[in-house]
Amino acid sequence: MIHQDTIVALATPSGAGAIAVIRLSGSDAIKIADSCFQSVTATKSLSNQKTHTIHLGHIIDDSKTIDEVLVSVFKNPNSYTGEDVVEISCHGSNYIQQEIIQLFLRNGCRMATAGEFTLRAFLNGKLDLSQAEAVADLISSDNEASHQIAMQQMRGGFSSEIAKLREELLNFASLIELELDFAEEDVEFADRTQFKALIERITFVLKRLIDSFAVGNVIKNGIPVAIVGEPNVGKSTLLNALLNEERAIVSEIAGTTRDTIEDEISIGGIGFRFIDTAGIRDTKDVVESIGIKKTFEKIDQAQVVIYLFDSTQFEALESQFIVELEKIKNKYPQKPLIVIANKIDQIDDTQIAVMQKDIPEIQLLSAKTGFGVEQLTNKLLNLINTGALRNNETIITNSRHYDSLLKAFEEIQKVKYGLDTDLSGDLMAIDIRQALYHFGEITGEITNDDLLGNIFANFCIGK
Amino acid sequence: MIHQDTIVALATPSGAGAIAVIRLSGSDAIKIADSCFQSVTATKSLSNQKTHTIHLGHIIDDSKTIDEVLVSVFKNPNSYTGEDVVEISCHGSNYIQQEIIQLFLRNGCRMATAGEFTLRAFLNGKLDLSQAEAVADLISSDNEASHQIAMQQMRGGFSSEIAKLREELLNFASLIELELDFAEEDVEFADRTQFKALIERITFVLKRLIDSFAVGNVIKNGIPVAIVGEPNVGKSTLLNALLNEERAIVSEIAGTTRDTIEDEISIGGIGFRFIDTAGIRDTKDVVESIGIKKTFEKIDQAQVVIYLFDSTQFEALESQFIVELEKIKNKYPQKPLIVIANKIDQIDDTQIAVMQKDIPEIQLLSAKTGFGVEQLTNKLLNLINTGALRNNETIITNSRHYDSLLKAFEEIQKVKYGLDTDLSGDLMAIDIRQALYHFGEITGEITNDDLLGNIFANFCIGK
Repeated sequence: MIHQDTIVALATPSGAGAIAVIRLSGSDAIKIADSCFQSVTATKSLSNQKTHTIHLGHIIDDSKTIDEVLVSVFKNPNSYTGEDVVEISCHGSNYIQQEIIQLFLRNGCRMATAGEFTLRAFLNGKLDLSQAEAVADLISSDNEASHQIAMQQMRGGFSSEIAKLREELLNFASLIELELDFAEEDVEFADRTQFKALIERITFVLKRLIDSFAVGNVIKNGIPVAIVGEPNVGKSTLLNALLNEERAIVSEIAGTTRDTIEDEISIGGIGFRFIDTAGIRDTKDVVESIGIKKTFEKIDQAQVVIYLFDSTQFEALESQFIVELEKIKNKYPQKPLIVIANKIDQIDDTQIAVMQKDIPEIQLLSAKTGFGVEQLTNKLLNLINTGALRNNETIITNSRHYDSLLKAFEEIQKVKYGLDTDLSGDLMAIDIRQALYHFGEITGEITNDDLLGNIFANFCIGK
Repeated sequence: MIHQDTIVALATPSGAGAIAVIRLSGSDAIKIADSCFQSVTATKSLSNQKTHTIHLGHIIDDSKTIDEVLVSVFKNPNSYTGEDVVEISCHGSNYIQQEIIQLFLRNGCRMATAGEFTLRAFLNGKLDLSQAEAVADLISSDNEASHQIAMQQMRGGFSSEIAKLREELLNFASLIELELDFAEEDVEFADRTQFKALIERITFVLKRLIDSFAVGNVIKNGIPVAIVGEPNVGKSTLLNALLNEERAIVSEIAGTTRDTIEDEISIGGIGFRFIDTAGIRDTKDVVESIGIKKTFEKIDQAQVVIYLFDSTQFEALESQFIVELEKIKNKYPQKPLIVIANKIDQIDDTQIAVMQKDIPEIQLLSAKTGFGVEQLTNKLLNLINTGALRNNETIITNSRHYDSLLKAFEEIQKVKYGLDTDLSGDLMAIDIRQALYHFGEITGEITNDDLLGNIFANFCIGK
């Protein structure tokens, strides 16, 4: 354990609540807490208590009682940070929280920086770097899929796989470097066939992980879906119908109001971000063409486009709909497009038949009655490869990991090429070292202060 | 202990943070927690653990891991509610919080209603009613004074005083009722002199407590201060100067922006609510007279009025100032009025002398340089009777208590009158019983469901 100064921070969300938790960590954590704590059984001292025990008493500033609290004691190395940790569970008033933190600051603590508790856990070997990063992901997870990925990563699923491959590669690297020492004797310690097999295995794993990033990224950030449609074709009703399917708004995107329906909805555990757009009918009107330009900007950002129209207006506006659909298809040939005829409860079968003949890919829906909603959610889910998720496969969501994996992949390709072309051992050793370096970046065996600073700055204070 | 169903709620403020705490209470709390918990030392069961211990493990829904958590176990009667209590300290993601609560709901818990944990603490005799009420006050306390009062009340300072008087009174009531049984023999078990002394003591205490309510009320809610002054006389600068004195905005009042400077500032531990008003100069303009009407409405609500003017304009506008001051004094003869000449750093001594001669009560100030600010804060503090606060006297802040004290006081006056006029014992006994009833209302010895419902509905859920 590294002896460090003692840090303090509020660990629970700010604001008033029933209780709040203030966390101290460091070699003086128990001593400092003790100096401000008076147990209900007056003579009890926190220093003499066992780890993982809870004590009722008062936080005292000189003779003034600040609050009645529960104090939890964790002794190193059996704590989150691996240091001595004390958690004060106090009444959840902003005033009390601040008074207690101020008191500890006056008594020798320092305010923790963002992520510093988890940084210490990493430095003390309680977590590897990718597990530490998963803590932040876990806290910000807001749907089942992102939660599951973060949880898996925190439990070491992904980094242990990387660590194992790294170890095997390191083993071969040592053998090849050993060969260099006996260069004149022309021996081969490293079995080239086995080595090739390992490189192929690594290539396979890296490729799978790298490919998973696309899925991971949409899962982490939600899949943007643009809904193109004129006012009153039923966009809000459709969103509400999708919501009812799941009965949970994940969040409203900051800065938008309910009126412009930009909602994030969790469907089958995956977050979808629905972006409302205006229609795109041809116009000479300047104001309207600005609107159309904006619609296209929004479609640019989306991964899926839903074209929604009111089927009671199909007869009157068919040619317009077809022109608009062609426009979208031509502009975005690669982007998944779902065409929905809404309000089909208000038209008859003959009319439906006409629509289906003229626009074969049409999907019938009544947001009002719920008809076709399930089919739509299935279609949305099928658009992303959720197979990996269902099979509990490792998915990469962190762009830092993605970057390191790409670099490692590149180096491994060089090693492979070296093996195929009988490259000399000394040159190959350089490529292997480079690959090892990028593996190490992921788990944190290779770090530098800037990197750590960047990673932990994204944490909230108190974690 | 009353065996009740097991309740669950989030105890920490909602929102994402480093950690969140979910609280269970009830006879099945430990059993239910155990069924969803897998200790890191796989065979450990929560039921076998000592009270006040903490256990690391995972919350499991079937085979799915929801989170790595710390579980605190409190066994009855050694818990907040007096029942078995389990606290789950999980990662502070909204998603995780909800998943864990949902899991417990599916496994036999019921969602706690507002204040239900504290209600159970009261029902199980862990707190009396006024102490329970103090918990809510403590959580909402946002300055030193309100915090100190709530803390004192929670520690029983006020209710133990009432309980003691109630007991003595109850004693006399019994003796007087005993006399009724021996009415024909004309005996006096209750010593009338001692009884008179007790009644006087009670009267004295009640009067002090009742009087303290005025102070308590302003401390709890902040003291409204109207600042009357034209634009640009330096209202914002003055508020900033007061702020700098204390370096803490308590809060901005909801619905107002920084522009209309309605700020709550803590001065010497007391909250002051500053209300910006327009000037009140005489005018024929319709719009302006509406403004003046509003100014007077705001002065109506305030307990203190500050009349602020720009001393560089004194020469030009003196007569207007004097008319306006007269207007305020005539309309509010009882309301404390502080007259401030701002910007005195910009005028010379001769001009100051003229001002002081014409408006003797004037207070010189420069919000810019800070001159006179301390004198102003002292003046504001002196306006309220903070003596009681400094002397650690009991202060009533709760209008329910105030109401019961007033009623008890009324009944005690009847008893006193009865004693003075040699009223018959049976009539006096009725008055005494009434007084006892109102005493009991405060500490909760006399309650009904409606009352309890009202009190605890003001709590947050999770407390």
